[in-house]
Amino acid sequence: MKVKELVEKIFENDKRFVSRAISIVESNNSNSAELLKELHKKTGKAYRIGITGPPGSGKSTLTNQLAKYYRLQQKTVGIIAVDPTSPFTGGALLGDRVRMNDIGNDPGIFIRSMATRGSLGGLSKKTIDAADVLDAAGYDFIIFETVGVGQSELDIAKTADTTVVMLVPESGDSIQAMKAGLMEIADFFVLNKSDRPGSDTAQTSLKTILMLRDHTEKDWLPGIIKCIASENIGTKEIADEIQRHRDFIIINNLLKEKREENYKIRIKEIAETLLKNELWMQERESFLNESLQKVADGTTSPYQVAETLFNDFKQKAILREQDGRK
Amino acid sequence: MKVKELVEKIFENDKRFVSRAISIVESNNSNSAELLKELHKKTGKAYRIGITGPPGSGKSTLTNQLAKYYRLQQKTVGIIAVDPTSPFTGGALLGDRVRMNDIGNDPGIFIRSMATRGSLGGLSKKTIDAADVLDAAGYDFIIFETVGVGQSELDIAKTADTTVVMLVPESGDSIQAMKAGLMEIADFFVLNKSDRPGSDTAQTSLKTILMLRDHTEKDWLPGIIKCIASENIGTKEIADEIQRHRDFIIINNLLKEKREENYKIRIKEIAETLLKNELWMQERESFLNESLQKVADGTTSPYQVAETLFNDFKQKAILREQDGRK
Repeated sequence: MKVKELVEKIFENDKRFVSRAISIVESNNSNSAELLKELHKKTGKAYRIGITGPPGSGKSTLTNQLAKYYRLQQKTVGIIAVDPTSPFTGGALLGDRVRMNDIGNDPGIFIRSMATRGSLGGLSKKTIDAADVLDAAGYDFIIFETVGVGQSELDIAKTADTTVVMLVPESGDSIQAMKAGLMEIADFFVLNKSDRPGSDTAQTSLKTILMLRDHTEKDWLPGIIKCIASENIGTKEIADEIQRHRDFIIINNLLKEKREENYKIRIKEIAETLLKNELWMQERESFLNESLQKVADGTTSPYQVAETLFNDFKQKAILREQDGRK
Repeated sequence: MKVKELVEKIFENDKRFVSRAISIVESNNSNSAELLKELHKKTGKAYRIGITGPPGSGKSTLTNQLAKYYRLQQKTVGIIAVDPTSPFTGGALLGDRVRMNDIGNDPGIFIRSMATRGSLGGLSKKTIDAADVLDAAGYDFIIFETVGVGQSELDIAKTADTTVVMLVPESGDSIQAMKAGLMEIADFFVLNKSDRPGSDTAQTSLKTILMLRDHTEKDWLPGIIKCIASENIGTKEIADEIQRHRDFIIINNLLKEKREENYKIRIKEIAETLLKNELWMQERESFLNESLQKVADGTTSPYQVAETLFNDFKQKAILREQDGRK
């Protein structure tokens, strides 16, 4: 199937082809860039929500509830669940199977899991590429669900228009979240399992931490919404807070700013990847491997080998160009 | 001070200059590469130990105890503590101040904290550069102490010759560690606060998880050592296990292999950084910024802009080279 035909099928939101397109961007094969170029002009309409937090904070449950809530309002929802697969079993987590039974058959919902395993580094790019496919297919909301434990997961959550950080009232959870960088990316917090003991204390300490932040009257202040996701309590309040944040960033021209910043990060990543792929062509990779013994015995140093490779790259670009001109 | 003079002072292990050298590699200024090239030939003698685990598992305490233990054996110890500074206060954690009072005045111990804040991405490179300074200065052991929450912290822990993962017998801690990728990098586990209830259960579940791993008879099997770091119980057993692992990897030629692999990762990172710096020179950064509006309105796409920048890079390398030949 030609890229142009696939693009048409995506614009029609034919789920089978949407799914195939995501597989293409995930595998990052030769059609991937061409496909994404074609899709780009139809992107930018979906509103992107990031839901992150420590393991066990109830992200999957809230994602499901939110998706159902939006469906009642005749909105369509694409879900990208970034799934830390177990290092030993390689399997998906239970949450995913539960989800599929719950909302997986709704024609207005598209669910895709992306495994973190084996895709370190490129994960954030692939996830955003996948979101672009869903955006071009016309989904009104795209929800990224990620575990807030690694940098790449945080990177994904950060690219969302509104980022929700979920916590549970366990002792020390808010402190851990602070250390893991979750505090900085939250547009607001959801305190799940708010019927548990310690919930009020957790809310108070979270508020205290938030008060310490520098802010002016004009800034958006992250609030704290309580919920019991498993009982669907608080879902409407969370959806309302997302809407309130959405209005705020649109009125203050921050959405445009944020999206341009995201494009910038993305372009840099793509250009750097193109460069890296050419840098590590077979010949230089072999030179690198042959140098390791000399580095180990001190004959040369990592810096010297790196500079040699860098200069060779520039030299070869020249030679190829001259060949082309002949 | 010239680099050559500084290098001499480092080889004499003059702490003031060792400290200055680490500041140079940390700031990554123009002298940094030259300095590290000179130092490289004297590196490779120190044994590198990584200690990682979730926040609150007792890493600082164990690092202190181990350092004191090695000092009793007339060995010198360099400590690099990768410190996740609070996003709001920017200050160092308590552990660091406690440590300074405890072992900071021992002439055979060198302590350096490196903040994670503001150095994402380059952190792992800088930490290993700093370890090279300490290695060249002649320290027998280098201990990297990192919180196992982010990818860059894991990357640092992984470069160690022996990586120790610390856990406490809290419920679910081992499961969280598994998700965070700690299980894969551990050469052995330390179960701290082993006097607490739940310690035996934690050990059993950890053992069960480890049993699931594929292994042959020849492989190193990560064990579990119990300790109470705050009471200095178990320190000798941990030092013995480090030695046992050290012997194992030397006899099986794995240390050499691991270090060559580390050099490879490092050379790649340096070469890629050189390339990125040249890619993002002022002119192209400006072009990128000017393109963002057009990307946002769909006139062009991130992939097209990235390709233009990539081609411009290769073209300019050629033009500069031709200018040089005139």
